[in-house]
Amino acid sequence: MKTKAELIPECPVAATVQLIGNKWKLLVIRNLLQRPWRFNELQKDLKGISQKVLTDSLRSMEADGIITRTVYPEVPPRVEYALSELGASLKPILDAMRAWGESYRSSKQDGEN
Amino acid sequence: MKTKAELIPECPVAATVQLIGNKWKLLVIRNLLQRPWRFNELQKDLKGISQKVLTDSLRSMEADGIITRTVYPEVPPRVEYALSELGASLKPILDAMRAWGESYRSSKQDGEN
Repeated sequence: MKTKAELIPECPVAATVQLIGNKWKLLVIRNLLQRPWRFNELQKDLKGISQKVLTDSLRSMEADGIITRTVYPEVPPRVEYALSELGASLKPILDAMRAWGESYRSSKQDGEN
Repeated sequence: MKTKAELIPECPVAATVQLIGNKWKLLVIRNLLQRPWRFNELQKDLKGISQKVLTDSLRSMEADGIITRTVYPEVPPRVEYALSELGASLKPILDAMRAWGESYRSSKQDGEN
């Protein structure tokens, strides 16, 4: 049986893609870089995501150690998702995506004029 | 009718995710950062991708101006995919993914010992 480490692709880009190469995961990470979020807040903010896909994405990121899930014993219980230390270390990738997106948006707006 | 620029998300991260927030597109970009590739080469290298998904991914990236498709009039015709200038400008994102993946792989290997 293969251990989890053996299942990580040898190519480091592929290893990263395996964990976060997905539209919704990237947008969840973008949000959690600001602060912890609750499930319903995330679902409201990520237009078009279904409850199932958000649940699956969060579980997968929790299993991969990218996010933490904390249940606060209130009535009703409050559940918050936050980045782990590993998840927070993804910030340079999101920063590069933000910089590229800003430049891309500007170029498209210039093209309109 | 909305112009294409109006369909670009306001959030720059979301704009980037809309174009390349997809496992296979990211791996194709990784490869094209090295040199131009032919369709069959890409399909062979990207283990598990179907012909349809690779075709759709390449067409979508060509429509978005990220890659170019060049047909060389040989017998049989040779078709090569390469990054456009816009596509090549994605390099910092892939560099950040490579750096993160290297660090992640190391930490998992340490964990095994």
